[in-house]
Parts: sequence; C-alpha cells; structure tokens
Amino acid sequence: MSDIGVTVKKNENFSEWYTEVVLKSGLADYAPIKGCMIFRELSYAIWEKIQEIFNKKIKATGHKNVYFPMFIPESFLKKEAEHFAGFVPEVAWVTQGGDSPLEEKLAVRPTSETIIYATYAKWIRSWRDLPIKLNQWCNIVRWETKATKPFLRTREFLWQEGHTAHATKEDSDKEVMDILNEYRDLMESYLAIPVLVGVKTDNEKFAGALYTTTLEAIMPDGKALQMGTSHNLGQNFAKVFDIKYIGEDEKEHYVWQTSWGISTRLIGALVMVHGDDKGLVIPPKVAPIQVVIVPIPYKGADSAAIMAKAKEVREKLVEKGITTILDDREEYTPGWKFNEWELKGVPIRVEIGPRDLKQEQVTLARRDTYQKTAVKLDDAVHAIEKLLEEIQNSLYAKAKAALAEKITTVSSYNEFQWTLEAKGGFIKAAWCGHSRCEEKIKEETGATIRLRPFEKEPPITDCIYCGAKAVEMVYFARSY
Amino acid sequence: MSDIGVTVKKNENFSEWYTEVVLKSGLADYAPIKGCMIFRELSYAIWEKIQEIFNKKIKATGHKNVYFPMFIPESFLKKEAEHFAGFVPEVAWVTQGGDSPLEEKLAVRPTSETIIYATYAKWIRSWRDLPIKLNQWCNIVRWETKATKPFLRTREFLWQEGHTAHATKEDSDKEVMDILNEYRDLMESYLAIPVLVGVKTDNEKFAGALYTTTLEAIMPDGKALQMGTSHNLGQNFAKVFDIKYIGEDEKEHYVWQTSWGISTRLIGALVMVHGDDKGLVIPPKVAPIQVVIVPIPYKGADSAAIMAKAKEVREKLVEKGITTILDDREEYTPGWKFNEWELKGVPIRVEIGPRDLKQEQVTLARRDTYQKTAVKLDDAVHAIEKLLEEIQNSLYAKAKAALAEKITTVSSYNEFQWTLEAKGGFIKAAWCGHSRCEEKIKEETGATIRLRPFEKEPPITDCIYCGAKAVEMVYFARSY
Repeated sequence: MSDIGVTVKKNENFSEWYTEVVLKSGLADYAPIKGCMIFRELSYAIWEKIQEIFNKKIKATGHKNVYFPMFIPESFLKKEAEHFAGFVPEVAWVTQGGDSPLEEKLAVRPTSETIIYATYAKWIRSWRDLPIKLNQWCNIVRWETKATKPFLRTREFLWQEGHTAHATKEDSDKEVMDILNEYRDLMESYLAIPVLVGVKTDNEKFAGALYTTTLEAIMPDGKALQMGTSHNLGQNFAKVFDIKYIGEDEKEHYVWQTSWGISTRLIGALVMVHGDDKGLVIPPKVAPIQVVIVPIPYKGADSAAIMAKAKEVREKLVEKGITTILDDREEYTPGWKFNEWELKGVPIRVEIGPRDLKQEQVTLARRDTYQKTAVKLDDAVHAIEKLLEEIQNSLYAKAKAALAEKITTVSSYNEFQWTLEAKGGFIKAAWCGHSRCEEKIKEETGATIRLRPFEKEPPITDCIYCGAKAVEMVYFARSY
Repeated sequence: MSDIGVTVKKNENFSEWYTEVVLKSGLADYAPIKGCMIFRELSYAIWEKIQEIFNKKIKATGHKNVYFPMFIPESFLKKEAEHFAGFVPEVAWVTQGGDSPLEEKLAVRPTSETIIYATYAKWIRSWRDLPIKLNQWCNIVRWETKATKPFLRTREFLWQEGHTAHATKEDSDKEVMDILNEYRDLMESYLAIPVLVGVKTDNEKFAGALYTTTLEAIMPDGKALQMGTSHNLGQNFAKVFDIKYIGEDEKEHYVWQTSWGISTRLIGALVMVHGDDKGLVIPPKVAPIQVVIVPIPYKGADSAAIMAKAKEVREKLVEKGITTILDDREEYTPGWKFNEWELKGVPIRVEIGPRDLKQEQVTLARRDTYQKTAVKLDDAVHAIEKLLEEIQNSLYAKAKAALAEKITTVSSYNEFQWTLEAKGGFIKAAWCGHSRCEEKIKEETGATIRLRPFEKEPPITDCIYCGAKAVEMVYFARSY
C-alpha cells in the first residue's frame, strides 16, 4: 500500500489508471521475473471467492475436482495438429532435470487437454464410465511476447479448466451450454459484469475444438474482454487419443468432449468495469471485506464508548455472515483510513463519531456513490444488509447500461470504421459468413468478430465488407 | 475403480499393499510422465478438506493467502549458498520460451523462499509493515532420481508454504511454534495420526534455516514419515536479500523469518496408518463422504418403501452437515457396493433392507471395525453423529497405541542395530551432539536422527556410537 492514492483519472488515461489502481490498492505487484505477476492478498482473496462460488455450482452438478501433472511431453501436445499449432509458439519448455538434459522436452501446461485425455483413454471402457466430469484449479503458462499487464496478460496465470467426456453429441452440447450459463451467472450475479454470449467463428475458436462458445464483456475504453469460454471438442481429441467406449449396443464409439475455463483475468475485468478515480470498487458478493468500521475519536469525546459501539456493530454484522473489519489502528487518522479503504474498494464504510454516539446512530458511506446516510443503531445491521444488496444491484445496472451504450449497429463498412475509431465498443454488423471478410476487417481495423450471438437477428444489410448476401448479424470489437 | 478389491495383505507386503490401495480406491493414478502422478477426485477432495481446515486456522491468526510466480531465476536461487546447494540437484529447469532460448534459465520452484524474499525486500520499510504473514497453496517440483511412489515421493506435488517476517527473534520463534502446534492439531485431531515433535539436527535441517522443527509419524512398516516442518530462518535470507526495516528506534534492522509447509504427502500417511486389507479407512473429519446409504432391495419386498426411507435418512443427515450419499445404482448388487465403499474408506455404511424396514430401524456398519449395529430410525441421525465421533477417536487411539509400541529405548549401539533390524520404528538413544556420530550411524544403518524432542530427558547412557558424554536422548529411525 502506498501512502498516496490514485493520481491518474480513469477517463483521462485508462491504461495508466488501471496499472496504478492494481498496484496501489495492493491487488497485485510485478514479479522480479519478466512478464510474471504476484497475486497479493486482496486479489487472491477475490480469486478464493470466485473459486468458492464456482466450485459450489459445478459440484452441485456432479463435477469433481482433480489435479493432473503440469508437465506435458512434446509428443502429446503434437498429437492434435491444430491444437499444437495453436499453442506451441507460446510454450515454456523444461529441458533439464538437475544436471541432466531430459530425453524428451516437457511443456509447462498451456492448457491440459492432451495430458488429461491421454488418461481418459485409459479410464473409459464402457458407457457406465460416462459421463466423466472433472475440473482442476491450477497455474498455466503461456510465454507471451506481447506487452504484459497484470491479470490481463501475464506469462503465468491461474485458472480452472473443466474436461468432460460424454456418450453423445447431445450430452456434450448440453454440458457446453450448462457451463456457459453457470459462467454467465457468476459474471453477472456475482462480479456484476454483464456479458454477451454466443459462438466464436472458426477463425477465433479454440485450437482443436468443434465449436467455442464465449462470454464477452466491454471495458470502459471500448475494448472487449473475453471473460470465459466453453468448448465442444467434438470427437477430435477422442480420435487422436483413442478414447472409446463400449455402448449399450455393445459397439465401440468415440466419446464427445468439452472443455471450459475462466481465469484470474476476471479480476482485471472487475477492476476496469467498477473502479473509479479513487481506486477499486468491489461488488459486495465477491468482496473479501464487505464492511469496514472506522471509529472517529474526537478530543474530549468518549472514545471508549465509541469503540464499544464499534465492536458491538462488528459483532452483529459478523453474526449475520457479513465480513467486517474494525479499523482500530491508532497510528492513522480517520481521513487516512477512508482513503485506504476506498482505494481497496470495500463496499460500505461505517463511521461512528461523537455525534453518531449521541444520536444513537451510525453513518454509512457507500463506496460506489460516496453517498452517506445516518441510520439508527438498532437498524444498522438490517440497513447494511439492504445496502450491500443495493450496491450489488446498482453496480450491475450501471455496467449493464454502459454495455448497452457501447453496442452500435452499423449498416456499412464506412460507418463500421468510423464507429470503431470514434467510440469503440461492440459493433453489430451483417456478415456473409466467410473467413476472408473477417480476416480483411481484422487486418484493416484490428477488430475481430467477438461472437455470433445465440439470439439470431436477420441481417439488416448485405455483408458490410464484400457486399455479398449476409447470413447473420455478428459482434465485432477490438479486444484485450 | 477396478472391479477387483485389494489382493495383497497389509502385513504381508506393505509396499505392494500401499500401491494397490492407492490405485484401486481411485485415490490416484500414475501419470503418463515418469515420476508424476494424478490426484484423482478422492485424494483431491481430501486435500480440499486439509486446505479448508488449515486455511481456517491460519486466517484466524492473521495469515493471508497469496500466489507468487512459479519460476525462479537461477541467480535468485544462488543467493543463499546453503539453500542453493540443498535444492539445485533436483531442480527442473525451463530453458526455452516458444522458439527462443531464455537468457537466464528458470527453476520451476522447488520451494519459494528466494522469490518471495526478493519481494519482501521491496515491501518492507518500517516496523509498521511487520509482521508479514503470507501463505500460498501451490505445486512444487523436485526432480527426484530415486524410485517414486504416489503421495510420498513424486516429481510434482502440492503443498502450502508459509513465509513470515518479524521484527524480533522472539516473534519468529513464537510463529514457528504456533504453526507447529496448528500442524499437530491438524494431524492428530483431524487426520488421526499422532506425531512426535522436536527439532532437527543441523545435518537434517532445512537448507538455509537457523533451525527446523518437525512433526514425525511412524508408519506400520516401522519407517518414520516427516509430516511437516516449521523453520526459523533467522536472518540468513534477510541478509542475502537485504530485507531491512526501520525500527521504532529509527535504526535499520534485518527481519527475522520463518517458513513452514505441509504437502499432499499427508494423504500417503493417512493411507498407510489407517488402511486395512480391504482398502482405505478415512477418518470422519477429513472424509469427503462420511456416510453411504445402501438400500437392500429384496424380491417381493417393498423396495419403493425402502428407497423412501433411505432418502429420508439422507435428508436428515445432510441437514446436520454430514456428507452423505445414497447409492441407488441399479446395475450393481448391494455386495458389490459394500466392497466398493469399503475400498474407498467411507467411515459409515447405512443399510436399509426389508427387515430393517419392518422393524423401523437401519443397520450401521463401521468401516474401521466392521462392527454392525441396528438402531431405531428415530435415533439414526444421533447414533450416526456419535458413531462418527467414536470412529475418529478410535482411529486416533489405535494409531497412538501403534506409535507407543514402535518407540524403543536402547542403551547400546548393538541394541540399536538389533532393534532397527528386528522391529524398526523410533529408537530413542543417547547422543553426544556431534554430527560425526550421526553421519556414521546413518552410513552404517540407514537410520537418521528424526528429531531432538522438545521434552528433554536426561541421557540414560553415554553416546551410543562414540561413548563420549551424551547431551540428550534423540529419536532415530529409517524414514521415507
């Protein structure tokens, strides 16, 4: 924690602002290794919240957590050609153990399909063994050559990767969508970040997948952020790893597979979407600290009585399951504490000063709007519970409005280009369905098709690039 | 899960038995990479229990979880000479990122002192910044050349590592002991494995530590297993990483540091200590499934009524926070299910058959003793709660007796050698305090000093090896 607050305004230099907030709030720090970061206690606690929420969801639907080795022999990675081509440029290789060179170099997992599926081939024999629905929380390494940024692009990050195998395509399709829906709920109901959902184009899908579904959010600078993906791998990996089962029909079949993941990148999204000029704003449902109580002693006033009230309020809140801390440090002033907890994004600050004491009340300060209200001591717990809910809803509503404001429908390539430069955001446009147009647009503007929405709308024009008959409206954007 | 149970008896071929139990119970599997293993759902769920228990303990005492990069530059590892010498023979090295060789090779962390302390040097400025008490749960790599064994020795494993910095030696000494006590409680009260505690000799201490405290358990084959260690690092790392703070006296001081860890090795201990000829026996407090209900349908009997009762019991147990599953699979017989859940170590099996139904009762079968008792339906939940407690206590008492039985006090080197061969276990003997005797004994017998107990006993003889005046009684053993 630096003593000085955020010095850059969010709407003046977004990128600088982001870096300052991340570092000064104590979310993260640069590591003494190029391209790597340190997840400090605040970001790791948010990650633990995300783990708790998502674990509950997937365990309730029969998924189990496991842990597979992080090293993947080069030969495994090579088995699925598209997959290998997609990942090999950014693999970190272990070539030496102790003093000895290894016989075969080992990839530090950039993703674990190959090592897990080599094992599924051994575990799966009969229809009785299906479905297999496993997940792991682990570290991932991708040797980025582009500029890195904490949470958004680093050489090592944390994620969960789910890997399932099913008897039929229908079952695998359903799994892909079930997970997508759980992701959506996590992002919208907990992180308070609205997302667009749909399917990736063939150019943008996961290396080795049949199709990729995605959740995309918009950041305040107008760039899209891929928040999570859920892939149907079809039988591609089953065929190269020979994952077969004997069906009830007593014949051999290849399994159908899915994989899906979300990462610590979500924390970066949370910073960007909700943060303000004073620092982080953390939605109550994922806030490691939901309420901070700051007693305000005053010369001559009864500071023992203030502290007693503060403790009483803390006890009551903790009883209700609200994570609360009482900042009773004597070496800092109330004003210093206000700044610190605002920087760290604690949703509600409770102030108790001499006047509050006299009037049997506490003052509640909202982190998101800075609004202050006095509530009677007797009502404090109830008021705080309601306010937490209100802040959660209000952050979501605000982000939802920002998303809506950042979707523009265009009817020509000119309008497309103009909008992209002037405003950014998602640009909805008619597309002919051909990779060539998609590639040319990317080349010329840097924007890619982020998703083909599930809810189809009839094209309002011909393809904005080639003028041929359009097949659907898709969402373009520049992205992280 | 194989259809066939454990085929080797624990007291006939302990090592084979262990491997069979681990593989057949579905705890773990070999990975398709030499020396690595797969933590399957059952072992990972036990690990999650351990994480939950230990997280609660350390968070209550002000520790925070974080995550540091897994890559450590060679130059960092080299800074503390003893530390480097201790770890370098078993480091896996990343030498290549994508297509390019790295400028400096990176160690995959064998432990994280160096990378964390390089950062502490940056974070710590004043006495106000102390203590720093951080912990991380992560994967660790040590490129073992000896034969590997699931949980006990693998090239990659999971652990937690705590790293603290304090203003004074007293504070760091206290931290070392506080953690040791938390570890002890985890092992004894939850894993039901009694341990001996004490200090390592200089030969056996952590590479770079001032002193190492340790918790040691005995396995049924008479070998000791180091269950966890808590180190006082003194100011060794502070001096090489230049970690200084300005004290209240306005002078610069080096910090005092501790580090401590437990790993997935604990799961191996649990298998060895409690398992039997039918498979795993998991202590209730760390059992991912505490109760399995097996309905026993019978021709002509009212199986719908049996199933209804089974569901009713499950609901009631779940309400009480007891993890319960109802095994209602139709493709398996009750006998097959009994074997499977015994293999997997579920503490209590509840049977409900036609006779139970008629007599308004259920039958409880204990995994540890195979004892069966019928209890009235109305008392079932209460009886199960009590039985879980009883099983937990009884497993601990049994292990405690086994430990006591495996400690032998000897008064000569002859007796020492004879005991080691005939019986193994801990051998308590008088020692002069010199490394030379310790090393000779290790060379000649393979036994090391596992610990110098905190509770000192006066030596009963002179040093059993050299005959010089002994300074204390210490515990020797061969170990994993």
